[in-house]
Amino acid sequence: MKIKAGIIGATGYAGAELVRILLTHPEVEIAAISSVSFEGQKLSDVYPSYQTLCDMECKSQDEAVAKSDVIFAALPHGLSQELAAQCDKAGKVFIDLGADFRLESEEEYQEWYGGKFLDKELHQKAVYGLPELFRENIRGKKIIANPGCYTTGAPLALAPAVKNGLVSTEGIIVDSKSGVTGAGRKPSQGSHYPELNEGFHAYKAASHRHTPEIEQTLSILSGKKVKITFVPHLLPVNRGIISTCYAHINEGVTKEQIRKAYEEFYQDEFFVRLLPDGANADIHHIKYSNFCDVSIHIDERTNTLIAVSAIDNMVKGAAGQAIQNMNIIFGLDEKTGLVIVPPAF
Amino acid sequence: MKIKAGIIGATGYAGAELVRILLTHPEVEIAAISSVSFEGQKLSDVYPSYQTLCDMECKSQDEAVAKSDVIFAALPHGLSQELAAQCDKAGKVFIDLGADFRLESEEEYQEWYGGKFLDKELHQKAVYGLPELFRENIRGKKIIANPGCYTTGAPLALAPAVKNGLVSTEGIIVDSKSGVTGAGRKPSQGSHYPELNEGFHAYKAASHRHTPEIEQTLSILSGKKVKITFVPHLLPVNRGIISTCYAHINEGVTKEQIRKAYEEFYQDEFFVRLLPDGANADIHHIKYSNFCDVSIHIDERTNTLIAVSAIDNMVKGAAGQAIQNMNIIFGLDEKTGLVIVPPAF
Amino acid sequence: MKIKAGIIGATGYAGAELVRILLTHPEVEIAAISSVSFEGQKLSDVYPSYQTLCDMECKSQDEAVAKSDVIFAALPHGLSQELAAQCDKAGKVFIDLGADFRLESEEEYQEWYGGKFLDKELHQKAVYGLPELFRENIRGKKIIANPGCYTTGAPLALAPAVKNGLVSTEGIIVDSKSGVTGAGRKPSQGSHYPELNEGFHAYKAASHRHTPEIEQTLSILSGKKVKITFVPHLLPVNRGIISTCYAHINEGVTKEQIRKAYEEFYQDEFFVRLLPDGANADIHHIKYSNFCDVSIHIDERTNTLIAVSAIDNMVKGAAGQAIQNMNIIFGLDEKTGLVIVPPAF
Amino acid sequence: MKIKAGIIGATGYAGAELVRILLTHPEVEIAAISSVSFEGQKLSDVYPSYQTLCDMECKSQDEAVAKSDVIFAALPHGLSQELAAQCDKAGKVFIDLGADFRLESEEEYQEWYGGKFLDKELHQKAVYGLPELFRENIRGKKIIANPGCYTTGAPLALAPAVKNGLVSTEGIIVDSKSGVTGAGRKPSQGSHYPELNEGFHAYKAASHRHTPEIEQTLSILSGKKVKITFVPHLLPVNRGIISTCYAHINEGVTKEQIRKAYEEFYQDEFFVRLLPDGANADIHHIKYSNFCDVSIHIDERTNTLIAVSAIDNMVKGAAGQAIQNMNIIFGLDEKTGLVIVPPAF
Repeated sequence: MKIKAGIIGATGYAGAELVRILLTHPEVEIAAISSVSFEGQKLSDVYPSYQTLCDMECKSQDEAVAKSDVIFAALPHGLSQELAAQCDKAGKVFIDLGADFRLESEEEYQEWYGGKFLDKELHQKAVYGLPELFRENIRGKKIIANPGCYTTGAPLALAPAVKNGLVSTEGIIVDSKSGVTGAGRKPSQGSHYPELNEGFHAYKAASHRHTPEIEQTLSILSGKKVKITFVPHLLPVNRGIISTCYAHINEGVTKEQIRKAYEEFYQDEFFVRLLPDGANADIHHIKYSNFCDVSIHIDERTNTLIAVSAIDNMVKGAAGQAIQNMNIIFGLDEKTGLVIVPPAF
Repeated sequence: MKIKAGIIGATGYAGAELVRILLTHPEVEIAAISSVSFEGQKLSDVYPSYQTLCDMECKSQDEAVAKSDVIFAALPHGLSQELAAQCDKAGKVFIDLGADFRLESEEEYQEWYGGKFLDKELHQKAVYGLPELFRENIRGKKIIANPGCYTTGAPLALAPAVKNGLVSTEGIIVDSKSGVTGAGRKPSQGSHYPELNEGFHAYKAASHRHTPEIEQTLSILSGKKVKITFVPHLLPVNRGIISTCYAHINEGVTKEQIRKAYEEFYQDEFFVRLLPDGANADIHHIKYSNFCDVSIHIDERTNTLIAVSAIDNMVKGAAGQAIQNMNIIFGLDEKTGLVIVPPAF
Repeated sequence: MKIKAGIIGATGYAGAELVRILLTHPEVEIAAISSVSFEGQKLSDVYPSYQTLCDMECKSQDEAVAKSDVIFAALPHGLSQELAAQCDKAGKVFIDLGADFRLESEEEYQEWYGGKFLDKELHQKAVYGLPELFRENIRGKKIIANPGCYTTGAPLALAPAVKNGLVSTEGIIVDSKSGVTGAGRKPSQGSHYPELNEGFHAYKAASHRHTPEIEQTLSILSGKKVKITFVPHLLPVNRGIISTCYAHINEGVTKEQIRKAYEEFYQDEFFVRLLPDGANADIHHIKYSNFCDVSIHIDERTNTLIAVSAIDNMVKGAAGQAIQNMNIIFGLDEKTGLVIVPPAF
Repeated sequence: MKIKAGIIGATGYAGAELVRILLTHPEVEIAAISSVSFEGQKLSDVYPSYQTLCDMECKSQDEAVAKSDVIFAALPHGLSQELAAQCDKAGKVFIDLGADFRLESEEEYQEWYGGKFLDKELHQKAVYGLPELFRENIRGKKIIANPGCYTTGAPLALAPAVKNGLVSTEGIIVDSKSGVTGAGRKPSQGSHYPELNEGFHAYKAASHRHTPEIEQTLSILSGKKVKITFVPHLLPVNRGIISTCYAHINEGVTKEQIRKAYEEFYQDEFFVRLLPDGANADIHHIKYSNFCDVSIHIDERTNTLIAVSAIDNMVKGAAGQAIQNMNIIFGLDEKTGLVIVPPAF
């Protein structure tokens, strides 16, 4: 029997992407979708791409929870805690694509998001769902904090070096460039075609909410409290994030050691493709897929590691990773439904 | 046991797209790929998107034929006839994505392509593979002339009206707009990013080789010799063709009759989605999929039918349709491996 | 002394484009700008491109009128009639980029725009400002109805053929493709980057408000009541309109006659560039400039003239043409301030 | 009498851009253009944008030199030294858009470009033409090494901080993102539309030739030998470079001090626009113009200065700056012919 999945916030971009992938997942049936703004409307009215493939109607949140074994929530930040409690009570698996459960420190949550932990016990039950780094913690859990988009790519670029102590954890710089879907479905001046097309700029330099989440992951990996400088930029493309990460190489560490550390770290990971020397991670090569491509470059003149990752912000940075987490929790092969070939063009 | 597929010309765009789709086709195994320019190289070296998914090496054409039950040929025009003969002799199914077998009239072939029919009997064995229009002819055949990109979308937009005699077959105008992949993988000034980006223009107005092929299909449908005016344009997008087709509505024919004719014509066709009144076919909604979306509009002031189709030139206009033909020939459900959800963004 | 120009609706796209061009016009000084939505704010806060070049504050409409010799109004349709009356009374030149004065027939205005002519005498004073076709009417006038974007490019493509009776005025088809700026500055789902990028579709097929305006011009040129089929499409580029126009060539008319008619018609027109045979009008080549490139193609198989024009919808299709009209009225060389070299890339 | 300008390499992108700007420069007449690949052809055949505006024929290099007072050379690296000698002998001003005279150290030139200084005295006569930093050196000179594109934007972003000793000169990171025109006019797989569109990647990480040139400028400004980590990326846009520069703020230096240093440094510079706090430099706002927009951001958590500059790589990063240098040398107002309003969209 198939797993029954419910999608809360199905008409947002992450929700729509969950639908796209789950529609061809062999072990899942979409039991219900929900949307506050479009309740009673068909998903294919909102996204004509889905005509004949998903003409389901958006139902209430409660109906979606009731009908499902696993609930994916793609809601604005702050709205997931109550829903998580509801699902927990009902014994359902809850996978949260929002930020409510991502930060372990309530203090940091308050600082960056301005909210509180409504139920600390619930937060104890939640686990941070970045499988390549924390797979063992995920198995058997019922509340998953699915990482944000920037917070998936940057840690995967740096993990082997940080975990193995090959680079200094001080002075790490993450310069990221994201496609526009990261800003969501709601039109705004900044995503109005004529003002974004042929443009490019940084935004929220050193003040983006994903900063503490990246730091949390790097701190766990290194065993030290890490602070980074994080500057995101907006790319005139639909999808994809490149994170160019800079870290000072520790004295005595060789190029070969770094290469080897990366190879060993990712040798069994299907979704992380470590590129050969000389190649460059490119969002063009991972679009629509759950892959994270990583390329590493050494600046020998300044002794700096340049680690670059490419992910699709909507897949490995959102919906795909959520499904990867679901696969783990339900004991499926982690790749099930996620072997999506990135188009060559 | 899976069908063994060989792809000749695998490093061109149509070839690469065949690989993308066949990699997840449940009844097919790619037995061999071949490329003259890249023999001995891995496909994933040419298209890094395919790393770890298709690291096969390009072999010789002969090896690809020998290993396969079905041979897909994505070759420059003129190179398929000998290969077809070779496959025919060896009892293999041959699906030609080139133009060599598309035109029934050798005279027209000579006029538009400058070549000859090397073996007329072979041409008798070939069938034109546009399943929605000629499905019954395809079953049991071994040589398939897979239609060109423009020649799929425009006929599908017009077929119900032409077949049912609702419009005049004189004065039909097809104004098409194609994404850049239609021009292939080879760089040129015209596809150099800075000169195409933010540009748009017609090309080969009234002189494009797909003209006689569209006319042939419309002639078969109508039972009359049809001549059209065909003007293709180059869109600054990767994929997709919109064909806006204009035809004079015959006297006495009503809007409702036209709507009904389209509904009946396509009611059982999975891959043709007739849009509701008021909607517009958009390449955004069919990208990467085998769908052909059709919208119809009536200009009551001038009594003109405006039928618009949207296809992905690389899928329904090339690789996807070729696989659809293969499914028919091998007795599979026509949708097998082709239920690709077009991304919502 | 310089001409004092006032711009009403300066923060919309056409208004902003007027500012861009007038800032370097040697005979004009921008006396005041006005905007309802941004009154009291600097234009450069709305468009950071203009920082240090135009940090003027948006004033009230009355103030802009009072300070100016010529008033350019880039307002939503329906709001210009009163302003025109006000300017007329004050003896100012009024150039309207909206539609209120474009149609001569009040009946058609009511049918397509749903409004009335508030003051018929005022409408008598207004002149349709397409200089290449109606230059003599413009001189000495004080109220100018500046043509719309589609309504500039399509008539310029067809004028020499229609005026000289070389084509039938029945069955003319205009298939236009416009950049996104045509939809204005206000964000909407349809102009939200991820949903428009890599997309293309027709809209308002056979129901766009520019239809009667194109017909009006072609009717004047031909001396017959012309009806056309007009289908606009939305291009994923910022600027530019290609209009591909189809007309049946009258019996006995030769290719050479058509070429000659076009050459003679446009030989003294600086802003219309008739391309050599074989070339294709491309929006890439006229961007940011006041040029209208025209290419003509003959389909000898169906006896059809295919005339293609390319304009920048914001320049020749709006602000540039408005300034061209101003130059005529004020007795300046028509090119003054408008010799903008279209960038090669 | 107007200055007679000759453009060598006029059919390359930098050459074409020189033509675009010089065509409307009030004190310059283009005396001759030259191109090896297109000798005898009209420039407007290569760039149809220029039809009727610049239909000049490409002549030989010698003819261009003979006819001109100032020679702009937009040649591949290595070809300028002989030409400089020829111009020097003939008493002409020579402005080199190539790299031959940019590096003061022959050793570095050899390391990064693989060539030699053919005539050391000639190199002594050359001056590095970044006016905002080295204006006084430029006056009265006859050989100008016009900076490269990356090497204009990054130093302008960092100069006030580095010059005033507000940041450490160790550990500076320059993460740049450039539009495609930087790669020139010649088609290649990497600039083939379908493979670059919707893509983004780093290239030549820590090995790009502009590295020593940026270091040279920062070393002069700081009085110390500076080494940087420089990683360029390729943006899917035609024009523009964003350089996001990271530098460690020296102890005790305040946010206010940094702001003040930038304000003072650029208060009299027309072409550098220091943006207000909270704004982000965006290539959208400087396209086609000679402006360099600079925004500064402080990461107080890590004590890092993030200085971001935006330039048009073809204007301030090439042709515009070359003309700015010409204006200085010929004693014109530096802005002459360069007050180009960046389009708002």
